[in-house]
Amino acid sequence: MTDANSLIPFFNPKGVVVIGASQDPTKLGYGLANNLHRSGFKGAVHFVNLKGGTLLGKPIYKSVLDVPDPVDLATVLIPAQHVIQILRECGERGIRAAIIGAGGFREIGPEGLELEREMLQVAKENGIRLIGPNCIGLLDTHLPIDTTFLPPPGPTPGDVAFLSHSGAICAAAIDWARGQGYGISRLVSLGNQADVSETDLLKPIAADEHTNVLVLYLEGIKNGRRFIQEAREVVQSKPIIALKVGKFESGRRAAASHTGALTGSESAYNAGFRRAGVLRADTSEEMFDQARALAWCPLPEGNRVAVLTNAGGPGVTAADALEARGLAMTEFSEKTIRGLESILPAAASTQNPVDMLAGAGPDEFAACLRILLADPGTDSVMVIFPTPPMHTAGAVAKAMIPAIHQTEKPVVVSVMGERLIQEAVEHLRAARIPEYRFPERAAAALAALVKRVNLLEYAAAEPVFRDDIDTKKASKIMSGSGDTSHLTALETSQLLKAYGIPAASMRLAETEEDAVALASEIGLPIVLKIASPDISHKTDIGGVLLNLADEKSVRSGYQSILNRARTAMPEANISGVYVQEMVPIGQEVIVGAVHDPQFGPVLMFGSGGTEVEGLKDLSFGLAPLTELEIDHMLSKTWAGQKLRGFRNIPPGDINAVREVLIRLAQLVNDYPQIREIEINPLQVFPDGKGVSAVDVRIRLDSSGHGSQI
Amino acid sequence: MTDANSLIPFFNPKGVVVIGASQDPTKLGYGLANNLHRSGFKGAVHFVNLKGGTLLGKPIYKSVLDVPDPVDLATVLIPAQHVIQILRECGERGIRAAIIGAGGFREIGPEGLELEREMLQVAKENGIRLIGPNCIGLLDTHLPIDTTFLPPPGPTPGDVAFLSHSGAICAAAIDWARGQGYGISRLVSLGNQADVSETDLLKPIAADEHTNVLVLYLEGIKNGRRFIQEAREVVQSKPIIALKVGKFESGRRAAASHTGALTGSESAYNAGFRRAGVLRADTSEEMFDQARALAWCPLPEGNRVAVLTNAGGPGVTAADALEARGLAMTEFSEKTIRGLESILPAAASTQNPVDMLAGAGPDEFAACLRILLADPGTDSVMVIFPTPPMHTAGAVAKAMIPAIHQTEKPVVVSVMGERLIQEAVEHLRAARIPEYRFPERAAAALAALVKRVNLLEYAAAEPVFRDDIDTKKASKIMSGSGDTSHLTALETSQLLKAYGIPAASMRLAETEEDAVALASEIGLPIVLKIASPDISHKTDIGGVLLNLADEKSVRSGYQSILNRARTAMPEANISGVYVQEMVPIGQEVIVGAVHDPQFGPVLMFGSGGTEVEGLKDLSFGLAPLTELEIDHMLSKTWAGQKLRGFRNIPPGDINAVREVLIRLAQLVNDYPQIREIEINPLQVFPDGKGVSAVDVRIRLDSSGHGSQI
Repeated sequence: MTDANSLIPFFNPKGVVVIGASQDPTKLGYGLANNLHRSGFKGAVHFVNLKGGTLLGKPIYKSVLDVPDPVDLATVLIPAQHVIQILRECGERGIRAAIIGAGGFREIGPEGLELEREMLQVAKENGIRLIGPNCIGLLDTHLPIDTTFLPPPGPTPGDVAFLSHSGAICAAAIDWARGQGYGISRLVSLGNQADVSETDLLKPIAADEHTNVLVLYLEGIKNGRRFIQEAREVVQSKPIIALKVGKFESGRRAAASHTGALTGSESAYNAGFRRAGVLRADTSEEMFDQARALAWCPLPEGNRVAVLTNAGGPGVTAADALEARGLAMTEFSEKTIRGLESILPAAASTQNPVDMLAGAGPDEFAACLRILLADPGTDSVMVIFPTPPMHTAGAVAKAMIPAIHQTEKPVVVSVMGERLIQEAVEHLRAARIPEYRFPERAAAALAALVKRVNLLEYAAAEPVFRDDIDTKKASKIMSGSGDTSHLTALETSQLLKAYGIPAASMRLAETEEDAVALASEIGLPIVLKIASPDISHKTDIGGVLLNLADEKSVRSGYQSILNRARTAMPEANISGVYVQEMVPIGQEVIVGAVHDPQFGPVLMFGSGGTEVEGLKDLSFGLAPLTELEIDHMLSKTWAGQKLRGFRNIPPGDINAVREVLIRLAQLVNDYPQIREIEINPLQVFPDGKGVSAVDVRIRLDSSGHGSQI
Repeated sequence: MTDANSLIPFFNPKGVVVIGASQDPTKLGYGLANNLHRSGFKGAVHFVNLKGGTLLGKPIYKSVLDVPDPVDLATVLIPAQHVIQILRECGERGIRAAIIGAGGFREIGPEGLELEREMLQVAKENGIRLIGPNCIGLLDTHLPIDTTFLPPPGPTPGDVAFLSHSGAICAAAIDWARGQGYGISRLVSLGNQADVSETDLLKPIAADEHTNVLVLYLEGIKNGRRFIQEAREVVQSKPIIALKVGKFESGRRAAASHTGALTGSESAYNAGFRRAGVLRADTSEEMFDQARALAWCPLPEGNRVAVLTNAGGPGVTAADALEARGLAMTEFSEKTIRGLESILPAAASTQNPVDMLAGAGPDEFAACLRILLADPGTDSVMVIFPTPPMHTAGAVAKAMIPAIHQTEKPVVVSVMGERLIQEAVEHLRAARIPEYRFPERAAAALAALVKRVNLLEYAAAEPVFRDDIDTKKASKIMSGSGDTSHLTALETSQLLKAYGIPAASMRLAETEEDAVALASEIGLPIVLKIASPDISHKTDIGGVLLNLADEKSVRSGYQSILNRARTAMPEANISGVYVQEMVPIGQEVIVGAVHDPQFGPVLMFGSGGTEVEGLKDLSFGLAPLTELEIDHMLSKTWAGQKLRGFRNIPPGDINAVREVLIRLAQLVNDYPQIREIEINPLQVFPDGKGVSAVDVRIRLDSSGHGSQI
């Protein structure tokens, strides 16, 4: 389903037939016909309805089989139960693309889902690509074409493409665009995505020369890995912004480890979007605020912002908003300050934010803006002003436009107010300069530009793989036992070893004598741990004894651990007691991974120990990992920052931690049947001294069985 | 300066004189005269200008001394250097209130500050209250009066009062109000606040019958305690929303403890606003979004929201936005579901969010809204819709209004779009129903209503004091030594004891023999700690030895601690080694307080230990503490949650922790000269077993000296 050529008729059809066209202006079938007619589409337009007749000066054919050439796209607005028959006729007529507007499929329950599957089957048999069902269609303002049934007016032509899982949000987006003064290039309502998905359309939409930015409203992603693959390529030339909703419904899954409980689906989406270089918007308002900035502004070289204003309050508000979003205030050069002083009254502030005072008019705004843009320390500029008391906001805006058009640096404007500033807003919009009513929104838009620069790096980064993995051994362990839902502790330990992940030596003792023998083999002191697939948090039931230094302690420890476990969990299946090397205490971190249904394996890193769920000092990244992603995971957590040393805690062996992350990511990437793996703690020793995995849990596939060491 | 009667002329003057009135329409002095004239003010209006003449059909007097009765408010728009003389003349003329619009005072530097002080002195001598200088004036749309010089049109009359430290934000606010469809009751630009401050005006503004909500734009608060006192009373009847800017500039002060470094001025503002019952807005947009909801809606009984919509996407988006803001989705009763089923098509969703499907029109919206409001599980309703494909948004909005007016529950509406929905917007605004273009903003407005309910409780809560404090002893310690910048360890220990805060016994050993004797007195095992006012983080230099169990260890420990300290910090002033009781390990929390310049003592609570700065698991509350505030501090931190027990960590003695918080708050409240106090760790033993302060730092006044035990 990835042949891009098969999608061409959706965006550049030679002829479109409206199946279900209606003469009744209150019907959607009339709305669609009228929109298509009105849109200025230059290809052929045909109408089909069983009743026949004429519509908008054209004949209504009774069957799609009667429709003359050219026709290569069908838009289908008829009751669900008739769609399959119509698709067969479309196939017969040689039509290879259809937009199914009708609802009554998957969204109404099992019966509808069955119908949708059957429809898809028929479409495949007839070589027809489908958009929908249960969608409002698509439009292209430049071609132009409009196959939606939304009430007019359609959107203004522009450079923002919008793809949406929700038709209602499409309708809202068109109207929001009108209010916020940007135009739309292409808009697609994806509906149930029986066939064509958001991922399929990324490249076709990005290929449109009129599109500068892609905005996605997503309720989920079917295949996260494919999405990343496609998006990574697209974002190299055009930014993608995604609003992903359904946060609170997703990802409440059963989990047997900290990692499983803590790696929600949202963490996977965040990691996935970052890997793909996709900017994730937090709100509907923000997604379009950011779209304007990304569509119209050059990218900044860094995060230092100069603020220009005509009063103190807006300057402080802007500085707050910028710093809250991770941007920095430019420190002006001497030249800049002297330049500002030569223009402004003595009482003005020539430090950042520049307060020109209330008397400033168009000339001062334009001249100071040029000075700020010329400062090599300025990466971008935010101009913020309410209507000046002695000038119009329109005149101020107009005066600044040439300077903004001549610079390579982004400039965003916050014209504070609503009615008095309409002329300013119109000037700025016409000049394709992003403007916002409220300073915080302008700051967020600038922040999106900086983020876009970083995301380009994330998308370009290549995953790291190690080539010294003992793949033969690993593969033997993973498939050897015949029962892949379960690995013995020995196997788990060997698996880590095969991937070059240092772990504490450990063996299973089934008797007290075993324990004594193994302790002497491993070397005293040792640790004893209860061995049971049913006991998840061993310390909770007193199932771990540390630092046993002589035979006597090993013997009594063996018995006491067994007794405690039997008392605490009489039903638990106990295979014995593990005898483990006593690893010294280092910085305790947690490293783990879960298999996300959309994005596959997601790595987790953070502060380890028993309080992981409480401290929530965690970060996530998609496997396989890139070096940049590892930087991110380390820098976002206190555990990662602390590895560089803190007060009397010496620097930990960060490189060894990075190796563990790389190798663990490689392991879970190689073996998708690993559902959860967790090392907690990974003891991190001082720089150069390495790391050691002390407690490891693995859960394979969905059977719930797993292995712990 | 708190005589409320003296402020009456600002809001209800009998006659106003514009000093600096101008005939030149490009001058602010004309703008002010014209606004006052145009405003419909029913009292007398007089103009003064040295040049004389006439203006707007009235004579311009050459001196304020010539102005006839009645006149009790002067608005002064003349250069700064002439203001003092004019104030003297106002005094002579019997005017007791003046608004000083002129700039050129404190905001331009030391010279201006001097002039401002002199002006204030003259005003006091003449019994004149001042608003400003450097402000744009005030207005009241109901009286009406307008003494601003802002370009017309003025704001629509309404119920939102706005007080601002920034004149420019006043101008913006008036224009924002026009765009967002709410009116303003009173607006005051406070300028430099030489005399009248935001705090002075809270009650006078709240007393206005037309004002339903007070919105404050603050760049700081001079006297945080007085603000809280006044605001606490006001919020009992009318909500206050504050946007406090200057976050990133404030509060970078030198600090000798974790508490000092971590309790930024912003934490104090947050704690202060909470204590005062003031809703803190995060952005300029939010402050007015919330104002509309608070001005127009009844308060909800709880946080359960029912969502009504005509499509899936908006429903999911709304649910996300609501849950992200801490609101819950109502679980509908059987009756509600049956009611919805009787109206809606089978494919509709009768669960929350209710998706009526695209065909829903005015009747369905109104009927379903009534059903949702009737559900006892519904505390509030959010209606969200784009323009329905077969109906107008206006008709839908209109149909819902009666149901909204008849309910005691708040209803907010998100009409998604911009142009097609204008009629709906107008209907809703006219009906005083808050409406928002974007769903996330509507959700935030509902959240503000719920927060208002909680804040009422915070504001009503009374601080807790213990009456078993040994005040005599405490007072002797704090004043006894004659050198209040320094307390000995013994004094610190006694001070805690006087306030009933359990601490580990500790004594200072000045020789090895001392150490041995004290160890035996306290009882082995003991802890040794370096005693030096110059060594802040003792463990960092190896200055702490735990668990010394015999005389030999005490002797060698004494010497080794001294050696380490001398090696690490040769300059440090070392008074010996503390011998301390070896306290068992419990849950380690940090409890501390700093003296904030605006709000006085602020308590801190959180996860203790050496990594406090990294983990940042902290919460703050103003001293003296209320029980509600303590609940808040405990529930907001992992340290506090963990006290209820977690996995194999038994519940800690929460009541003992609460006692420490109450008593420490009482201590710092009693002795403002305590700049910083920190107990880290406070060992919290299992429930019923109490707590023990193990390491305590105190810094007094601003000298930097202090004491540690």
